[in-house]
Amino acid sequence: MAEVKLIGSPLSFYCWRVAMVLKMKGVDYEYILEDPRNKSPLLLKYNPIHKKIPVLLHGGNPIAESLVIIEYIHETWKENPIILSEDPYERAIARFWAKFTDEKVIPGVWAAFSTRGEAREKATESAIELLKTVDQELKGKKFFGGEAIGYLDIVMGLIPCWLPIWEEVLGMKLVDAETFPSLHAWVENFLEVPIIKESLPPRDEMLHIFRQYISPSTATK
Amino acid sequence: MAEVKLIGSPLSFYCWRVAMVLKMKGVDYEYILEDPRNKSPLLLKYNPIHKKIPVLLHGGNPIAESLVIIEYIHETWKENPIILSEDPYERAIARFWAKFTDEKVIPGVWAAFSTRGEAREKATESAIELLKTVDQELKGKKFFGGEAIGYLDIVMGLIPCWLPIWEEVLGMKLVDAETFPSLHAWVENFLEVPIIKESLPPRDEMLHIFRQYISPSTATK
Repeated sequence: MAEVKLIGSPLSFYCWRVAMVLKMKGVDYEYILEDPRNKSPLLLKYNPIHKKIPVLLHGGNPIAESLVIIEYIHETWKENPIILSEDPYERAIARFWAKFTDEKVIPGVWAAFSTRGEAREKATESAIELLKTVDQELKGKKFFGGEAIGYLDIVMGLIPCWLPIWEEVLGMKLVDAETFPSLHAWVENFLEVPIIKESLPPRDEMLHIFRQYISPSTATK
Repeated sequence: MAEVKLIGSPLSFYCWRVAMVLKMKGVDYEYILEDPRNKSPLLLKYNPIHKKIPVLLHGGNPIAESLVIIEYIHETWKENPIILSEDPYERAIARFWAKFTDEKVIPGVWAAFSTRGEAREKATESAIELLKTVDQELKGKKFFGGEAIGYLDIVMGLIPCWLPIWEEVLGMKLVDAETFPSLHAWVENFLEVPIIKESLPPRDEMLHIFRQYISPSTATK
């Protein structure tokens, strides 16, 4: 088999996604650590357009953009688990929600934690609306695709794995069981999956980084 | 076969994309015309999240987001032409560029035509940089995927089919043969394809709409 390398950082959610799918598929790979504040010549060579992690290298061929990489992994290592349905309609629906996650949910939730004052109030209201849409989509389901964890669960993994860190640092609870019953139940189901439990982002480092991120603003604004 | 309907407008580039792929695949469908200024109950029912055209209905099942719809059509009507490569790496590269087109190229080019004064100067500079990236990708190629028109050509179809309308109305040439030799040659190749020639957007209406769009701003700013 051709060599697989992942250029990324364990602190980046978009890299975590790709690393999780590689792990689920049982693909051996080398993790080439990238410092997000100091872009390496390797990253600039392999993702000259966006200059962003993650980048997957497979037999020397680079692929950028986490959703594109995940579909590539799914199509290249066809063995179990099947993370994305074989049915074109179910696949289209999963891709629709993945796009919604990246274009709306993630920026919307991040805005609720990265802004201050009145801007935060507005951003929090918007984030709640977005999360209610996700909650509705999860109604009556264990995971997005049914009984087993799959593509869209990993794509949405920021909510169970990153959000609690931000909530803890800011003392601000966004996803509670009362407002979001289905989403909250999904978060619990998600965190119970053994392969997820073993691969949670490094909690101490995450707390440290997010505290660093918010502290200068708290002091100066 | 289940009934196929497209909710959209021939003036919308995103709808044109989907209509082109249906035509290339020889899929019979009913075009349900939507007035972009007055959203119908049908649109709100079938795309409650974004409330945007195009929406494809296949046997009553709705699919939104043009790139998602195009992949669905490609996977559902597998007969010729194969618009997206069977090779996972080539497919990943095509998806990377499609994402780049929708997130960067189209908004960037539109900004160059929809802004005024200093903002337009800046937007034009950015648009030129984006188009140079596309030009580079097309170097030595007849179409994005090789010798035949395919997925990424249709995704990028704004440049040969919409841009000239905007250039004509504003008397502002963006894509010339000197600055963008490969892109310019591709536009010519693209417009020579019989199925494209038969399906160009309605020129008079396009000119009319874009003139209406720009005239109030020209008068008041």
